Amino acid sequence: MYKNIKTIAFDADDTLWVNETYFREAELKFAQLMQPYETINQINQELFKIEIDNLDYYGYGIKGFVLSMIEAALKLSNNQVTQDTIANIVAIGKEMMDKPVELLDGVEDVLRELSPKYRLVLATKGDLMDQERKLEKSGLLKYFHHIEVMSDKKASDYTKLIGHLDIKPPEFLMIGNSLKSDILPLLEIGAQAIHVPFHTTWQHEEVHEKELDSADFQTINKLKEVLSHISLKS
Amino acid sequence: MYKNIKTIAFDADDTLWVNETYFREAELKFAQLMQPYETINQINQELFKIEIDNLDYYGYGIKGFVLSMIEAALKLSNNQVTQDTIANIVAIGKEMMDKPVELLDGVEDVLRELSPKYRLVLATKGDLMDQERKLEKSGLLKYFHHIEVMSDKKASDYTKLIGHLDIKPPEFLMIGNSLKSDILPLLEIGAQAIHVPFHTTWQHEEVHEKELDSADFQTINKLKEVLSHISLKS
Repeated sequence: MYKNIKTIAFDADDTLWVNETYFREAELKFAQLMQPYETINQINQELFKIEIDNLDYYGYGIKGFVLSMIEAALKLSNNQVTQDTIANIVAIGKEMMDKPVELLDGVEDVLRELSPKYRLVLATKGDLMDQERKLEKSGLLKYFHHIEVMSDKKASDYTKLIGHLDIKPPEFLMIGNSLKSDILPLLEIGAQAIHVPFHTTWQHEEVHEKELDSADFQTINKLKEVLSHISLKS
Repeated sequence: MYKNIKTIAFDADDTLWVNETYFREAELKFAQLMQPYETINQINQELFKIEIDNLDYYGYGIKGFVLSMIEAALKLSNNQVTQDTIANIVAIGKEMMDKPVELLDGVEDVLRELSPKYRLVLATKGDLMDQERKLEKSGLLKYFHHIEVMSDKKASDYTKLIGHLDIKPPEFLMIGNSLKSDILPLLEIGAQAIHVPFHTTWQHEEVHEKELDSADFQTINKLKEVLSHISLKS
Protein backbone atom coordinates (compact mmCIF):
# COMPACT_ATOMS: atom_id res chain seq x y z
CA MET A 1 0.00 0.00 0.00
CA TYR A 2 1.32 3.42 -0.98
CA LYS A 3 1.28 5.84 1.97
CA ASN A 4 1.37 9.56 2.79
CA ILE A 5 0.32 10.52 -0.70
CA LYS A 6 -1.12 14.01 -1.25
CA THR A 7 -1.05 14.32 -5.02
CA ILE A 8 -1.48 11.64 -7.65
CA ALA A 9 -0.20 12.45 -11.12
CA PHE A 10 -1.23 10.54 -14.21
CA ASP A 11 0.63 10.31 -17.45
CA ALA A 12 -1.82 10.73 -20.35
CA ASP A 13 -0.66 9.07 -23.60
CA ASP A 14 -0.97 5.28 -23.33
CA THR A 15 -1.89 5.56 -19.64
CA LEU A 16 -5.31 7.25 -19.90
CA TRP A 17 -5.84 6.97 -23.64
CA VAL A 18 -4.44 5.25 -26.73
CA ASN A 19 -1.60 7.14 -28.42
CA GLU A 20 1.37 5.03 -29.49
CA THR A 21 -0.93 2.89 -31.62
CA TYR A 22 -1.71 5.93 -33.79
CA PHE A 23 1.98 6.70 -34.22
CA ARG A 24 2.59 3.09 -35.25
CA GLU A 25 -0.20 3.29 -37.81
CA ALA A 26 1.29 6.52 -39.15
CA GLU A 27 4.75 4.94 -39.38
CA LEU A 28 3.23 2.10 -41.36
CA LYS A 29 1.59 4.52 -43.80
CA PHE A 30 4.89 6.34 -44.12
CA ALA A 31 6.73 3.09 -44.83
CA GLN A 32 4.22 2.25 -47.55
CA LEU A 33 4.75 5.66 -49.17
CA MET A 34 8.52 5.15 -49.06
CA GLN A 35 8.57 1.57 -50.36
CA PRO A 36 9.60 2.63 -53.90
CA TYR A 37 12.87 3.92 -52.46
CA GLU A 38 14.05 1.70 -49.63
CA THR A 39 13.49 -1.45 -47.57
CA ILE A 40 11.00 -1.28 -44.69
CA ASN A 41 13.83 -1.82 -42.23
CA GLN A 42 15.89 1.04 -43.64
CA ILE A 43 12.84 3.32 -43.69
CA ASN A 44 12.02 2.65 -40.04
CA GLN A 45 15.62 3.06 -38.94
CA GLU A 46 16.13 6.32 -40.82
CA LEU A 47 12.90 7.83 -39.54
CA PHE A 48 13.74 6.91 -35.95
CA LYS A 49 17.25 8.33 -36.27
CA ILE A 50 15.93 11.62 -37.68
CA GLU A 51 13.25 11.87 -34.97
CA ILE A 52 15.86 11.47 -32.24
CA ASP A 53 18.26 13.93 -33.92
CA ASN A 54 15.38 16.43 -34.11
CA LEU A 55 14.19 16.10 -30.50
CA ASP A 56 16.12 19.19 -29.38
CA TYR A 57 14.53 21.17 -32.19
CA TYR A 58 11.00 19.81 -32.22
CA GLY A 59 10.36 18.04 -28.91
CA TYR A 60 7.64 15.41 -28.73
CA GLY A 61 4.36 15.51 -30.61
CA ILE A 62 2.71 15.19 -33.99
CA LYS A 63 4.06 18.35 -35.67
CA GLY A 64 7.66 17.38 -35.02
CA PHE A 65 6.89 13.83 -36.14
CA VAL A 66 5.52 15.12 -39.47
CA LEU A 67 8.54 17.36 -40.02
CA SER A 68 10.82 14.39 -39.32
CA MET A 69 8.87 12.21 -41.78
CA ILE A 70 9.32 14.89 -44.46
CA GLU A 71 13.04 15.08 -43.76
CA ALA A 72 13.30 11.27 -43.82
CA ALA A 73 11.34 11.12 -47.09
CA LEU A 74 13.78 13.52 -48.76
CA LYS A 75 16.77 11.60 -47.47
CA LEU A 76 15.49 8.06 -48.15
CA SER A 77 14.55 8.99 -51.72
CA ASN A 78 17.70 10.96 -52.37
CA ASN A 79 15.46 14.02 -52.96
CA GLN A 80 13.35 12.08 -55.49
CA VAL A 81 10.21 11.78 -53.35
CA THR A 82 7.20 13.12 -55.23
CA GLN A 83 5.30 16.24 -54.24
CA ASP A 84 2.17 14.12 -53.83
CA THR A 85 3.95 12.02 -51.25
CA ILE A 86 4.99 15.14 -49.32
CA ALA A 87 1.34 16.23 -49.35
CA ASN A 88 0.35 12.76 -48.13
CA ILE A 89 2.77 13.00 -45.23
CA VAL A 90 1.31 16.37 -44.19
CA ALA A 91 -2.14 14.76 -44.38
CA ILE A 92 -1.04 11.86 -42.14
CA GLY A 93 -0.32 14.42 -39.41
CA LYS A 94 -3.72 16.09 -39.68
CA GLU A 95 -5.43 12.69 -39.65
CA MET A 96 -3.62 11.89 -36.40
CA MET A 97 -4.88 15.15 -34.92
CA ASP A 98 -8.43 14.31 -36.01
CA LYS A 99 -8.44 10.91 -34.29
CA PRO A 100 -10.96 10.45 -31.50
CA VAL A 101 -9.59 9.97 -28.01
CA GLU A 102 -9.99 6.36 -27.00
CA LEU A 103 -9.92 6.00 -23.21
CA LEU A 104 -8.23 2.92 -21.81
CA ASP A 105 -10.19 0.44 -19.75
CA GLY A 106 -11.43 1.69 -16.37
CA VAL A 107 -9.87 5.15 -16.63
CA GLU A 108 -12.97 7.13 -15.78
CA ASP A 109 -13.85 4.83 -12.84
CA VAL A 110 -10.40 5.32 -11.34
CA LEU A 111 -10.45 9.10 -11.69
CA ARG A 112 -13.99 9.34 -10.31
CA GLU A 113 -12.97 7.28 -7.29
CA LEU A 114 -9.73 9.13 -6.57
CA SER A 115 -10.59 12.74 -7.35
CA PRO A 116 -12.59 13.44 -4.16
CA LYS A 117 -9.79 11.97 -2.04
CA TYR A 118 -6.58 13.21 -3.63
CA ARG A 119 -5.41 16.17 -5.63
CA LEU A 120 -5.08 14.77 -9.15
CA VAL A 121 -2.63 16.12 -11.70
CA LEU A 122 -2.20 15.29 -15.37
CA ALA A 123 1.52 15.26 -16.17
CA THR A 124 2.05 14.74 -19.86
CA LYS A 125 5.01 15.11 -22.17
CA GLY A 126 4.43 16.42 -25.62
CA ASP A 127 3.06 19.17 -27.73
CA LEU A 128 0.80 21.70 -25.99
CA MET A 129 -1.81 21.77 -28.78
CA ASP A 130 -1.87 17.96 -29.15
CA GLN A 131 -2.34 17.39 -25.45
CA GLU A 132 -4.94 20.11 -24.89
CA ARG A 133 -6.92 18.85 -27.87
CA LYS A 134 -6.90 15.28 -26.54
CA LEU A 135 -7.77 16.36 -23.01
CA GLU A 136 -10.76 18.30 -24.26
CA LYS A 137 -11.96 15.39 -26.39
CA SER A 138 -11.44 13.00 -23.47
CA GLY A 139 -13.95 14.69 -21.15
CA LEU A 140 -11.55 14.06 -18.25
CA LEU A 141 -10.63 17.67 -17.51
CA LYS A 142 -13.07 17.89 -14.59
CA TYR A 143 -11.15 15.33 -12.54
CA PHE A 144 -7.88 17.24 -12.53
CA HIS A 145 -6.73 19.99 -10.21
CA HIS A 146 -3.82 20.85 -12.48
CA ILE A 147 -2.62 20.05 -16.00
CA GLU A 148 1.10 20.09 -16.67
CA VAL A 149 2.30 19.73 -20.25
CA MET A 150 6.04 19.13 -19.94
CA SER A 151 8.58 19.47 -22.73
CA ASP A 152 10.49 16.61 -21.08
CA LYS A 153 10.11 14.25 -18.13
CA LYS A 154 13.52 14.15 -16.52
CA ALA A 155 14.05 14.09 -12.74
CA SER A 156 14.66 17.87 -12.78
CA ASP A 157 11.36 18.47 -14.58
CA TYR A 158 9.50 16.54 -11.87
CA THR A 159 11.37 18.38 -9.11
CA LYS A 160 10.11 21.63 -10.60
CA LEU A 161 6.53 20.35 -10.83
CA ILE A 162 6.52 19.00 -7.26
CA GLY A 163 7.93 22.30 -5.96
CA HIS A 164 5.22 24.14 -7.81
CA LEU A 165 2.58 21.91 -6.18
CA ASP A 166 4.03 22.82 -2.79
CA ILE A 167 4.51 19.23 -1.56
CA LYS A 168 7.46 16.95 -0.81
CA PRO A 169 8.56 14.22 -3.25
CA PRO A 170 7.38 11.30 -1.04
CA GLU A 171 3.89 12.82 -1.10
CA PHE A 172 3.78 12.60 -4.90
CA LEU A 173 2.68 9.42 -6.67
CA MET A 174 3.11 9.16 -10.44
CA ILE A 175 1.19 6.59 -12.48
CA GLY A 176 2.22 5.91 -16.06
CA ASN A 177 3.18 3.50 -18.78
CA SER A 178 6.75 4.59 -19.48
CA LEU A 179 9.50 3.29 -17.21
CA LYS A 180 11.86 5.90 -18.60
CA SER A 181 9.56 8.92 -18.27
CA ASP A 182 6.99 8.08 -15.60
CA ILE A 183 8.79 5.77 -13.16
CA LEU A 184 12.59 5.97 -12.94
CA PRO A 185 12.94 9.80 -12.67
CA LEU A 186 10.40 9.78 -9.82
CA LEU A 187 12.23 7.11 -7.83
CA GLU A 188 15.44 9.08 -8.39
CA ILE A 189 14.04 12.10 -6.53
CA GLY A 190 12.33 10.13 -3.76
CA ALA A 191 8.79 10.26 -5.11
CA GLN A 192 6.57 7.21 -5.59
CA ALA A 193 5.48 5.50 -8.80
CA ILE A 194 3.20 2.81 -10.21
CA HIS A 195 3.85 1.30 -13.62
CA VAL A 196 0.95 0.36 -15.93
CA PRO A 197 2.55 -1.02 -19.10
CA PHE A 198 0.92 -0.40 -22.47
CA HIS A 199 1.29 -3.12 -25.09
CA THR A 200 3.34 -0.89 -27.38
CA THR A 201 6.33 1.22 -26.35
CA TRP A 202 8.20 3.67 -28.55
CA GLN A 203 11.81 2.54 -28.92
CA HIS A 204 13.00 5.87 -27.45
CA GLU A 205 11.13 5.15 -24.20
CA GLU A 206 12.67 1.72 -23.65
CA VAL A 207 15.07 1.17 -20.75
CA HIS A 208 17.76 -1.43 -20.06
CA GLU A 209 16.88 -4.06 -17.53
CA LYS A 210 19.83 -3.16 -15.31
CA GLU A 211 18.37 0.33 -14.80
CA LEU A 212 15.50 -1.40 -13.02
CA ASP A 213 17.70 -3.19 -10.46
CA SER A 214 16.64 -2.22 -6.98
CA ALA A 215 14.00 0.16 -8.36
CA ASP A 216 11.10 0.18 -5.90
CA PHE A 217 7.75 0.37 -7.64
CA GLN A 218 4.63 -1.68 -8.33
CA THR A 219 3.65 -2.88 -11.76
CA ILE A 220 -0.02 -3.44 -12.44
CA ASN A 221 -1.77 -4.81 -15.51
CA LYS A 222 -4.75 -2.50 -15.67
CA LEU A 223 -5.19 1.02 -14.36
CA LYS A 224 -8.10 -0.09 -12.18
CA GLU A 225 -5.71 -2.08 -10.01
CA VAL A 226 -4.26 1.16 -8.61
CA LEU A 227 -7.32 1.31 -6.38
CA SER A 228 -6.03 -1.66 -4.40
CA HIS A 229 -2.66 0.01 -3.83
CA ILE A 230 -3.88 3.40 -2.60
CA SER A 231 -5.90 4.20 0.52
CA LEU A 232 -9.46 5.13 -0.44
CA LYS A 233 -10.51 6.51 2.94
CA SER A 234 -11.72 10.08 2.61
CA MET B 1 -0.75 54.82 -11.48
CA TYR B 2 -1.90 51.19 -11.51
CA LYS B 3 -3.08 50.10 -8.05
CA ASN B 4 -3.74 46.99 -5.95
CA ILE B 5 -1.60 44.82 -8.19
CA LYS B 6 -0.32 41.52 -6.81
CA THR B 7 0.92 39.78 -9.93
CA ILE B 8 2.46 41.27 -13.05
CA ALA B 9 2.45 39.11 -16.15
CA PHE B 10 4.64 39.76 -19.15
CA ASP B 11 4.08 38.58 -22.66
CA ALA B 12 7.35 37.27 -24.11
CA ASP B 13 7.54 37.48 -27.93
CA ASP B 14 8.02 41.11 -29.03
CA THR B 15 7.55 42.31 -25.45
CA LEU B 16 10.70 40.91 -23.82
CA TRP B 17 12.53 39.78 -26.93
CA VAL B 18 12.46 40.08 -30.72
CA ASN B 19 10.28 37.48 -32.44
CA GLU B 20 8.04 38.80 -35.21
CA THR B 21 11.10 40.12 -37.04
CA TYR B 22 12.36 36.55 -37.44
CA PHE B 23 9.02 35.41 -38.82
CA ARG B 24 9.08 38.30 -41.29
CA GLU B 25 12.60 37.33 -42.40
CA ALA B 26 11.43 33.74 -42.85
CA GLU B 27 8.40 34.84 -44.87
CA LEU B 28 10.73 36.83 -47.10
CA LYS B 29 12.94 33.78 -47.69
CA PHE B 30 9.85 31.73 -48.42
CA ALA B 31 8.61 34.32 -50.93
CA GLN B 32 11.99 34.24 -52.67
CA LEU B 33 11.82 30.44 -52.94
CA MET B 34 8.30 30.67 -54.37
CA GLN B 35 8.99 33.47 -56.88
CA PRO B 36 9.20 31.07 -59.86
CA TYR B 37 5.53 30.19 -59.28
CA GLU B 38 3.60 33.24 -58.13
CA THR B 39 3.62 36.97 -57.38
CA ILE B 40 4.89 38.10 -53.99
CA ASN B 41 1.43 39.32 -53.10
CA GLN B 42 -0.19 36.01 -53.93
CA ILE B 43 2.51 34.11 -52.03
CA ASN B 44 2.03 36.18 -48.88
CA GLN B 45 -1.74 35.96 -49.04
CA GLU B 46 -1.80 32.22 -49.59
CA LEU B 47 0.66 31.54 -46.78
CA PHE B 48 -1.33 33.70 -44.36
CA LYS B 49 -4.58 32.01 -45.34
CA ILE B 50 -3.11 28.54 -44.81
CA GLU B 51 -1.59 29.55 -41.47
CA ILE B 52 -4.97 30.77 -40.21
CA ASP B 53 -6.77 27.69 -41.54
CA ASN B 54 -4.22 25.52 -39.73
CA LEU B 55 -4.37 27.30 -36.35
CA ASP B 56 -6.79 24.74 -34.90
CA TYR B 57 -4.45 21.96 -35.96
CA TYR B 58 -1.05 23.46 -35.27
CA GLY B 59 -1.50 26.40 -32.91
CA TYR B 60 1.18 29.10 -32.80
CA GLY B 61 4.89 28.54 -33.22
CA ILE B 62 7.64 27.63 -35.62
CA LYS B 63 6.75 23.98 -36.32
CA GLY B 64 3.23 24.86 -37.42
CA PHE B 65 4.61 27.75 -39.46
CA VAL B 66 6.97 25.39 -41.32
CA LEU B 67 4.19 22.90 -42.00
CA SER B 68 2.03 25.74 -43.33
CA MET B 69 4.88 26.93 -45.58
CA ILE B 70 5.22 23.41 -47.01
CA GLU B 71 1.48 23.24 -47.66
CA ALA B 72 1.54 26.70 -49.25
CA ALA B 73 4.53 25.73 -51.42
CA LEU B 74 2.68 22.70 -52.78
CA LYS B 75 -0.42 24.74 -53.46
CA LEU B 76 1.27 27.83 -54.96
CA SER B 77 3.34 25.67 -57.31
CA ASN B 78 0.49 23.36 -58.22
CA ASN B 79 2.57 20.52 -56.75
CA GLN B 80 5.57 21.48 -58.92
CA VAL B 81 7.77 22.82 -56.10
CA THR B 82 11.15 21.07 -56.12
CA GLN B 83 12.33 18.72 -53.42
CA ASP B 84 15.26 21.05 -52.76
CA THR B 85 12.84 23.84 -51.99
CA ILE B 86 10.96 21.64 -49.52
CA ALA B 87 14.30 20.88 -47.86
CA ASN B 88 15.03 24.62 -47.78
CA ILE B 89 11.73 25.33 -46.06
CA VAL B 90 12.48 22.74 -43.37
CA ALA B 91 15.89 24.40 -42.95
CA ILE B 92 14.27 27.85 -42.53
CA GLY B 93 12.46 26.49 -39.46
CA LYS B 94 15.60 25.10 -37.86
CA GLU B 95 17.43 28.37 -38.53
CA MET B 96 14.64 30.21 -36.70
CA MET B 97 15.05 27.87 -33.74
CA ASP B 98 18.81 28.47 -33.74
CA LYS B 99 18.44 32.27 -33.57
CA PRO B 100 19.86 33.93 -30.48
CA VAL B 101 17.38 35.61 -28.16
CA GLU B 102 17.66 39.35 -28.53
CA LEU B 103 16.27 41.13 -25.47
CA LEU B 104 14.43 44.38 -26.07
CA ASP B 105 15.72 47.60 -24.55
CA GLY B 106 15.57 47.83 -20.75
CA VAL B 107 13.95 44.43 -20.18
CA GLU B 108 16.38 43.15 -17.61
CA ASP B 109 16.34 46.45 -15.68
CA VAL B 110 12.56 46.33 -15.44
CA LEU B 111 12.45 42.71 -14.28
CA ARG B 112 15.23 43.27 -11.76
CA GLU B 113 13.37 46.26 -10.33
CA LEU B 114 9.95 44.60 -10.16
CA SER B 115 10.76 41.02 -9.14
CA PRO B 116 11.44 41.76 -5.44
CA LYS B 117 8.18 43.73 -5.19
CA TYR B 118 5.66 41.73 -7.22
CA ARG B 119 5.06 38.16 -8.20
CA LEU B 120 6.12 38.07 -11.85
CA VAL B 121 4.64 35.67 -14.37
CA LEU B 122 5.60 35.00 -17.97
CA ALA B 123 2.43 34.45 -19.99
CA THR B 124 3.28 33.49 -23.51
CA LYS B 125 1.30 32.07 -26.39
CA GLY B 126 2.96 29.55 -28.63
CA ASP B 127 4.80 26.31 -28.90
CA LEU B 128 6.10 24.82 -25.64
CA MET B 129 9.52 23.90 -27.05
CA ASP B 130 9.99 27.26 -28.82
CA GLN B 131 9.15 29.25 -25.71
CA GLU B 132 11.18 27.13 -23.27
CA ARG B 133 14.16 27.31 -25.60
CA LYS B 134 13.95 31.09 -25.82
CA LEU B 135 13.41 31.51 -22.10
CA GLU B 136 16.49 29.44 -21.37
CA LYS B 137 18.59 31.41 -23.87
CA SER B 138 17.26 34.70 -22.47
CA GLY B 139 18.66 34.21 -18.96
CA LEU B 140 15.43 35.72 -17.59
CA LEU B 141 14.04 32.61 -15.89
CA LYS B 142 15.26 33.71 -12.45
CA TYR B 143 12.94 36.71 -12.37
CA PHE B 144 9.74 34.72 -12.79
CA HIS B 145 7.64 32.99 -10.18
CA HIS B 146 5.69 31.11 -12.80
CA ILE B 147 5.87 30.41 -16.54
CA GLU B 148 2.64 29.85 -18.41
CA VAL B 149 2.81 28.71 -22.02
CA MET B 150 -0.72 29.11 -23.32
CA SER B 151 -2.13 27.56 -26.46
CA ASP B 152 -4.28 30.68 -26.83
CA LYS B 153 -4.81 34.02 -25.08
CA LYS B 154 -8.54 34.47 -24.97
CA ALA B 155 -10.38 35.93 -21.96
CA SER B 156 -11.21 32.40 -20.76
CA ASP B 157 -7.54 31.40 -20.89
CA TYR B 158 -6.62 34.34 -18.67
CA THR B 159 -9.49 33.58 -16.27
CA LYS B 160 -8.03 30.10 -15.85
CA LEU B 161 -4.52 31.46 -15.27
CA ILE B 162 -5.68 34.06 -12.73
CA GLY B 163 -7.69 31.42 -10.88
CA HIS B 164 -4.65 29.20 -10.78
CA LEU B 165 -2.61 32.08 -9.30
CA ASP B 166 -5.23 32.45 -6.58
CA ILE B 167 -5.85 36.18 -7.07
CA LYS B 168 -8.69 38.34 -8.36
CA PRO B 169 -8.64 39.85 -11.88
CA PRO B 170 -8.13 43.48 -10.69
CA GLU B 171 -4.95 42.30 -8.92
CA PHE B 172 -3.49 41.05 -12.21
CA LEU B 173 -1.60 43.38 -14.54
CA MET B 174 -0.63 42.15 -18.01
CA ILE B 175 2.06 43.88 -20.05
CA GLY B 176 2.45 43.06 -23.72
CA ASN B 177 2.67 44.18 -27.32
CA SER B 178 -0.48 42.62 -28.75
CA LEU B 179 -3.76 44.50 -28.29
CA LYS B 180 -5.64 41.39 -29.31
CA SER B 181 -3.84 38.91 -27.06
CA ASP B 182 -2.34 40.90 -24.19
CA ILE B 183 -4.71 43.83 -23.63
CA LEU B 184 -8.36 43.44 -24.72
CA PRO B 185 -9.06 40.00 -23.15
CA LEU B 186 -7.69 41.30 -19.82
CA LEU B 187 -9.90 44.37 -19.79
CA GLU B 188 -12.84 42.12 -20.66
CA ILE B 189 -12.40 40.15 -17.42
CA GLY B 190 -11.68 43.15 -15.21
CA ALA B 191 -7.91 42.76 -15.05
CA GLN B 192 -5.44 45.55 -15.85
CA ALA B 193 -3.15 45.97 -18.85
CA ILE B 194 -0.34 48.07 -20.26
CA HIS B 195 0.37 48.11 -23.98
CA VAL B 196 3.97 48.31 -25.28
CA PRO B 197 3.71 48.25 -29.08
CA PHE B 198 6.37 46.52 -31.15
CA HIS B 199 7.15 48.00 -34.55
CA THR B 200 5.89 44.91 -36.39
CA THR B 201 2.59 43.15 -35.75
CA TRP B 202 1.46 39.92 -37.36
CA GLN B 203 -1.70 40.54 -39.38
CA HIS B 204 -3.57 37.96 -37.28
CA GLU B 205 -2.94 40.01 -34.12
CA GLU B 206 -4.31 43.26 -35.51
CA VAL B 207 -7.55 44.69 -34.10
CA HIS B 208 -10.10 47.15 -35.45
CA GLU B 209 -10.00 50.59 -33.98
CA LYS B 210 -13.59 50.39 -32.78
CA GLU B 211 -12.65 47.48 -30.50
CA LEU B 212 -10.49 49.98 -28.63
CA ASP B 213 -13.32 52.43 -27.91
CA SER B 214 -13.63 52.97 -24.18
CA ALA B 215 -10.86 50.44 -23.51
CA ASP B 216 -9.03 51.57 -20.40
CA PHE B 217 -5.28 50.99 -20.61
CA GLN B 218 -2.00 52.85 -20.87
CA THR B 219 0.21 52.68 -23.92
CA ILE B 220 3.92 53.20 -23.41
CA ASN B 221 6.74 53.43 -25.95
CA LYS B 222 9.39 51.47 -24.13
CA LEU B 223 9.08 48.75 -21.53
CA LYS B 224 11.12 50.81 -19.06
CA GLU B 225 8.26 53.31 -18.81
CA VAL B 226 6.18 50.75 -16.89
CA LEU B 227 8.22 51.71 -13.85
CA SER B 228 6.53 55.10 -13.75
CA HIS B 229 3.06 53.52 -13.82
CA ILE B 230 3.51 50.97 -11.05
CA SER B 231 4.23 51.56 -7.37
CA LEU B 232 7.82 50.60 -6.55
CA LYS B 233 7.49 50.68 -2.77
CA SER B 234 8.44 47.36 -1.27
